[in-house]
Amino acid sequence: MCAIVGIYGNENAARLASLALFSMQHRGQEATGISSSCDGKIYTKKDRGLVSEVFTDEALKYLKGDMAIGHNRYSTAGGDSILDAQPVFAKYKLGEISIVHNGNLINKDEVRRELIDNGAIFQTGMDTENLIHLIAKNSKDRLRDRIEEALQKTIGAYCFIIQSRNKQFVIRDRYGIRPLSLGKLKSGGYIVASETCAFELVDAKFIRDIRPGEMLIFSKKSDEPESIQLFEPEFRPCAFEYVYFARPDSEIDGKNVYNTRENMGKTLAKNDKGNGIHVDMVIPVPDSGVPAALGYASESKIPFKYGIIRNHYVGRTFIEPTQEMRNMKVKMKLSPMRSLIEGKSLLVIDDSIVRGTTSKRIVRMLKEAGAKEVHFRVASPEIKYPCFYGIDTPSKEELISHRMTKEEICEYIEADTLEYLSIEDLVNSIGNDRHYALESFDGDYFVTK
Amino acid sequence: MCAIVGIYGNENAARLASLALFSMQHRGQEATGISSSCDGKIYTKKDRGLVSEVFTDEALKYLKGDMAIGHNRYSTAGGDSILDAQPVFAKYKLGEISIVHNGNLINKDEVRRELIDNGAIFQTGMDTENLIHLIAKNSKDRLRDRIEEALQKTIGAYCFIIQSRNKQFVIRDRYGIRPLSLGKLKSGGYIVASETCAFELVDAKFIRDIRPGEMLIFSKKSDEPESIQLFEPEFRPCAFEYVYFARPDSEIDGKNVYNTRENMGKTLAKNDKGNGIHVDMVIPVPDSGVPAALGYASESKIPFKYGIIRNHYVGRTFIEPTQEMRNMKVKMKLSPMRSLIEGKSLLVIDDSIVRGTTSKRIVRMLKEAGAKEVHFRVASPEIKYPCFYGIDTPSKEELISHRMTKEEICEYIEADTLEYLSIEDLVNSIGNDRHYALESFDGDYFVTK
Amino acid sequence: MCAIVGIYGNENAARLASLALFSMQHRGQEATGISSSCDGKIYTKKDRGLVSEVFTDEALKYLKGDMAIGHNRYSTAGGDSILDAQPVFAKYKLGEISIVHNGNLINKDEVRRELIDNGAIFQTGMDTENLIHLIAKNSKDRLRDRIEEALQKTIGAYCFIIQSRNKQFVIRDRYGIRPLSLGKLKSGGYIVASETCAFELVDAKFIRDIRPGEMLIFSKKSDEPESIQLFEPEFRPCAFEYVYFARPDSEIDGKNVYNTRENMGKTLAKNDKGNGIHVDMVIPVPDSGVPAALGYASESKIPFKYGIIRNHYVGRTFIEPTQEMRNMKVKMKLSPMRSLIEGKSLLVIDDSIVRGTTSKRIVRMLKEAGAKEVHFRVASPEIKYPCFYGIDTPSKEELISHRMTKEEICEYIEADTLEYLSIEDLVNSIGNDRHYALESFDGDYFVTK
Amino acid sequence: MCAIVGIYGNENAARLASLALFSMQHRGQEATGISSSCDGKIYTKKDRGLVSEVFTDEALKYLKGDMAIGHNRYSTAGGDSILDAQPVFAKYKLGEISIVHNGNLINKDEVRRELIDNGAIFQTGMDTENLIHLIAKNSKDRLRDRIEEALQKTIGAYCFIIQSRNKQFVIRDRYGIRPLSLGKLKSGGYIVASETCAFELVDAKFIRDIRPGEMLIFSKKSDEPESIQLFEPEFRPCAFEYVYFARPDSEIDGKNVYNTRENMGKTLAKNDKGNGIHVDMVIPVPDSGVPAALGYASESKIPFKYGIIRNHYVGRTFIEPTQEMRNMKVKMKLSPMRSLIEGKSLLVIDDSIVRGTTSKRIVRMLKEAGAKEVHFRVASPEIKYPCFYGIDTPSKEELISHRMTKEEICEYIEADTLEYLSIEDLVNSIGNDRHYALESFDGDYFVTK
Repeated sequence: MCAIVGIYGNENAARLASLALFSMQHRGQEATGISSSCDGKIYTKKDRGLVSEVFTDEALKYLKGDMAIGHNRYSTAGGDSILDAQPVFAKYKLGEISIVHNGNLINKDEVRRELIDNGAIFQTGMDTENLIHLIAKNSKDRLRDRIEEALQKTIGAYCFIIQSRNKQFVIRDRYGIRPLSLGKLKSGGYIVASETCAFELVDAKFIRDIRPGEMLIFSKKSDEPESIQLFEPEFRPCAFEYVYFARPDSEIDGKNVYNTRENMGKTLAKNDKGNGIHVDMVIPVPDSGVPAALGYASESKIPFKYGIIRNHYVGRTFIEPTQEMRNMKVKMKLSPMRSLIEGKSLLVIDDSIVRGTTSKRIVRMLKEAGAKEVHFRVASPEIKYPCFYGIDTPSKEELISHRMTKEEICEYIEADTLEYLSIEDLVNSIGNDRHYALESFDGDYFVTK
Repeated sequence: MCAIVGIYGNENAARLASLALFSMQHRGQEATGISSSCDGKIYTKKDRGLVSEVFTDEALKYLKGDMAIGHNRYSTAGGDSILDAQPVFAKYKLGEISIVHNGNLINKDEVRRELIDNGAIFQTGMDTENLIHLIAKNSKDRLRDRIEEALQKTIGAYCFIIQSRNKQFVIRDRYGIRPLSLGKLKSGGYIVASETCAFELVDAKFIRDIRPGEMLIFSKKSDEPESIQLFEPEFRPCAFEYVYFARPDSEIDGKNVYNTRENMGKTLAKNDKGNGIHVDMVIPVPDSGVPAALGYASESKIPFKYGIIRNHYVGRTFIEPTQEMRNMKVKMKLSPMRSLIEGKSLLVIDDSIVRGTTSKRIVRMLKEAGAKEVHFRVASPEIKYPCFYGIDTPSKEELISHRMTKEEICEYIEADTLEYLSIEDLVNSIGNDRHYALESFDGDYFVTK
Repeated sequence: MCAIVGIYGNENAARLASLALFSMQHRGQEATGISSSCDGKIYTKKDRGLVSEVFTDEALKYLKGDMAIGHNRYSTAGGDSILDAQPVFAKYKLGEISIVHNGNLINKDEVRRELIDNGAIFQTGMDTENLIHLIAKNSKDRLRDRIEEALQKTIGAYCFIIQSRNKQFVIRDRYGIRPLSLGKLKSGGYIVASETCAFELVDAKFIRDIRPGEMLIFSKKSDEPESIQLFEPEFRPCAFEYVYFARPDSEIDGKNVYNTRENMGKTLAKNDKGNGIHVDMVIPVPDSGVPAALGYASESKIPFKYGIIRNHYVGRTFIEPTQEMRNMKVKMKLSPMRSLIEGKSLLVIDDSIVRGTTSKRIVRMLKEAGAKEVHFRVASPEIKYPCFYGIDTPSKEELISHRMTKEEICEYIEADTLEYLSIEDLVNSIGNDRHYALESFDGDYFVTK
Repeated sequence: MCAIVGIYGNENAARLASLALFSMQHRGQEATGISSSCDGKIYTKKDRGLVSEVFTDEALKYLKGDMAIGHNRYSTAGGDSILDAQPVFAKYKLGEISIVHNGNLINKDEVRRELIDNGAIFQTGMDTENLIHLIAKNSKDRLRDRIEEALQKTIGAYCFIIQSRNKQFVIRDRYGIRPLSLGKLKSGGYIVASETCAFELVDAKFIRDIRPGEMLIFSKKSDEPESIQLFEPEFRPCAFEYVYFARPDSEIDGKNVYNTRENMGKTLAKNDKGNGIHVDMVIPVPDSGVPAALGYASESKIPFKYGIIRNHYVGRTFIEPTQEMRNMKVKMKLSPMRSLIEGKSLLVIDDSIVRGTTSKRIVRMLKEAGAKEVHFRVASPEIKYPCFYGIDTPSKEELISHRMTKEEICEYIEADTLEYLSIEDLVNSIGNDRHYALESFDGDYFVTK
């Protein structure tokens, strides 16, 4: 649950990378970093904080060169998270190298154990360090060959951008689980980014998505990136990007995120037809529930109302509420539109339910604000399994759908009714022209190579 | 264009005041401050920054006592703005006093000149300092009498909360231009705040709005505040609060802000009926254009789409774009949903047009993203006159509607068509049961006493 | 216990003022501020913190103009000390004015009460505000006349620098209690500063001290400042500046501070002659005890040793020691030279004893480090009375010499012997050619007009 | 040029480590870090800044456990120095490990090349990373055996403290170049620190110095540390610690630093006997020149005067002086005592001359302050060679004594006469009972194994 970017062949490489990361801040707010390459040397700046805080003019001046890679980090536990920020830089036999990674390697512990058994040291908790070791231990003369062989031992959901002193290697796993798109910068050179929403601000034109199992190589040899199909593609992009994670204005693998969310809402509405429930309005949980709620409203002809206001000034530290001030955590962020709600039956749409605690607080908040009924609709199926492919979900035990039936959850969150999308509904909403990674819903951990 | 709050009779007074200010952060982000009273002493903490930054636990511990007043400041020019933060504190003959103010005194220069001629000194640029001087110079024995006489010399749009060592005085001008509401805290005591949206987080029940020309006095003498009608009411609340400034979940003088904005959108739609223009979707300029766009869509049956995404991570300092990266300022904040827009005719709704530069950039951004036509609709009338009643508008010369006709503006912002609400439309949308302060639209500067 | 500076007639006025304040940082570390004047407008920047933190290049750019006044503040109690930083700025009838002040007005409460009774408001706790009010209330047409009359009502120890839009007025009280010197800047114009040590860094040549009761006026009328003898001089400069407060490289009223401290040490040595005590070395309590210890050593021929090391990295916040780690507060700052001390008889010299707690901790630290005997010598007389003339001393009750005899103090601090200078010794050490302000030692509060 | 500390067997381990680092702040101000061990896990906190800034109560709470190692870093070049802060932490085959290092490995490039050739990656520029790799690559089962073998390949001047989950290994190179001492904490457990000055604040009793070539192992097996003589000792402690680097209250290998500096000054005085130069006073360049100047004065009977004042408020960022304000950099820090100096012949003592620029500025400053003659004495021999054993000296070309004779330097720095200590003088001043590392003076790079 991170964002990565690569800029190749533009004299403002680091600046453009920082703007792209800024556009993808929603994918990670804890730490950010950029490595640039110039005259055979790699420059790195990474730190805790938002993109707009870390990349001062001074920092961008330090990041010289016409190529750069960057990363936004979602979150880490522990005291010194700066060590777990990316890019990961190292010197090894062929020179200097820097890597950014979005995803999760499922065989990382085995690989790490083997590497450690052979005398490697690990200075961070990041699986990105695995890949550098595999590249460094390899005996091939060319970086591209080392990368290829290293990837043979790398199982998981991943997008890597690897930068040497004068090249960039872009790799997407054979399943294409995490998104990655290629664009052409109007001011010269190329951009590769986790989401196409990054292209607007840097004035880039979308070219195509990186193909599952593909490696792109940017080098001085050619104006166009070289493409190598490293692995047989078995395309299964992550459904969760459409459900919750991506920005609605992004196109992920040819599908507009906003549209898919609208479809999810429409499907919920179709499913509700003839259920005998009368509601006065459709209300989204902002911001991610908005498109689905708009879809539900347009399908059902029930009025859409912005019944919950989101406060965007919530900072990273503030008043710890005293014991009497309970339920305040949700209310700091979300506020009910009392006059709209009072005495009304509401159909509330959120993108997903994970632990159930936030949903419960929202329902309670709406009822305290006078709602007569709260019918809760979830624009995704029940999350019964943790994701090991790059989304930060809690353990199985904490997932409410692992422990409770839909009916029990409905009672727990104090809603009047509760409905989810079925897995089939979800697939149809995104587009049933391909398979998706759905492991959080169906437990099919298909990544094996 | 500020927020004020008073908490009376609650042992967590400063903490509750900070939460209320947090809920009203949209009314001012430059500086914030709170004065509490305890055992005959007034404690003040004010500083630049957001509420969540200034009011640390340490600060709140310092602000002892069961009564507190607070303020969010919109913006000031100059180098040392901390001196212009509120509350304004002073010692004077009857003891200590602290004042917060939302509004603008139109005779402040004359009053200040007269006070200065009589030997007063002014240490800030704030008109609030005038009122303290008028109170201090008065010879009456009771603070309430001094306040009354001081207000006789005070002409303008204002809400004051004045705190002495053991009382709070709440005053709203005779026109009721700026909003001010009274609530009862469930944990004990009262709250007075610029907007009712502050009541949610502190768990307060709305009682009523402060009446135009009313003074409320909170004291130990009575559980209920004492009410004095200081001035003959001539009710004319500010229409701009409904158009743009207030949070949509607030009730201003009995009218829900969200509803009035929806009505404005519906009226725009009615006006467009039969105009022969075909559009594919209604798109709001987020966030303030959303309710009107929803209203337009529901009235016109044209689909509402969230075609512009707002980035909420824009910090206070960031990369100064280089010359080549023009138009970026708007794009840092707003991003077009390219796939939704491409080849489509759009009806775009914003709350108002002030200088016209932002509107022009939005239209251009949408067209660059592929929009076939952009029909711009403004959910308020043309702003032809500066506001002197507390809204921070630019000078007459900078107001585009002062210099250009609607047709010229339409051409300037490169829209296909442009429509505003008429003043009558606006009044009807809010509710034609009363007069409003409409000076920005009609130039009627009615405040004379 | 503050520092003030005025720069007149130099295009780098604010920058030079900041350098002078930097050189006088020892006189106050809590807050600092500068007001400059340019084109009829006064610019002010003041904040908590050290000079090197507050006066960034940005701040200095804001402080335009060829005249500036500045201030370092020693300390204030309370939560929002920024309001008590100087310069104090105000608008009044004749325009804008800004004042810095070093000293203490002994009739401030009466004056303030009278001003308040006449309707004045006070926004800070600083007596500087009194003077602005007195100037503002005056009805004379010229600022100089207003200042003169205001000073008639001002009793105390003071140095003021008052800046209008185009003039600077420098005043020293009739007793010349607090120091103030005039210098000529090699880069053009004049400097007035509390201590001559400020002249080095700004490359100024010492001209003379401001005379007791003198007012200097800098204006465009003349290249030289105009001098007016406002009050009959009754010269009694503060002895404490020589004892402790001034930097040793300053000349205060024609006497080099370092020399006077050396003399104090020599006198202590003379007094010790024939007392039968044998000591192995003379050790200063650094840094202020060093010159007296050198004087003692040179007179007594006993070796001088740097037996206590001072740690200059003590920041403003650090680890709160746990209960077991007692006595650590002194040891964070001072560290004994164990190998030098072990088994030796020491003569330890400090500049003064106020409460006695630090002296006790030093003696104990030295004994724990192995000192056989510790003979404590104080390079000043017993402090029996609080100072009301600008030095921040504790209340009478906290002064150990108010409660205890010399013998009792010796026992309390666990020293083997203890000797002070007599008042006569002190006077002779500084120079018996004039009277001094000695109120902390003899209780003679002579300031009456 | 760093400080290291280890605390073993005390429940306040991290707190005591921070206090010890605070006492050794003079050995490095750029970055600081601590690793503690608790319940089989290592906790690390490191950051840019002073000890008192980095180790907040929160940080110390995170650093759980009864053992801790810490480090102060002198300086690094480049943009992201936080990555080069210590301790260096890694996971490897036997578990978790953390290392601090003071010194310099002279074969680091060869070792690194060999490691890299074998597939290792290096993530920092620190030679400490070499040692971790050597330990990790080793195939022995016990950490102690791995450390022993790793050290066989490690040539240089070093002190290491290596912490595993439950042990601490302390190693000093066979020459004992960098200092390292063992103490017993009164509150329980042991301390090992670069300088004994760290023992005062943590209330530890000095036991002995770590022997050249010794490894101490702290473990639960025994109350006493186990001692292993890893290498045949060839004792040659660094003379520079006595000349300049150590705090004067430290004992380095049985010799008190202050005493040795006093001796250096006395020797300079003896050498000057009969040279026909008459001076009025001896003046130190503070702070490090003070003991030598005291020694010179006591030997020559010429009065010692504190003729240069040092300003300790110099922060890390301040006003960049304009072009006209030259020579200011030295004057920000050092200020001449004009009245003492005027018309006098001075003998000025500094600890060393490296590039010559500071000495030149000091002489010029003193002459501008009126000194008739300035005789410059240096309490060390001419520095002709860079140090590769852990002191941060510039390249050979920048060393003034490499390029110029004594006579040329005297002319360059504008002194009247200039004298150094001979190498023999230096050795005799410290104590001629052993050999010293003198490579900066004699170019004897003796470290070969």
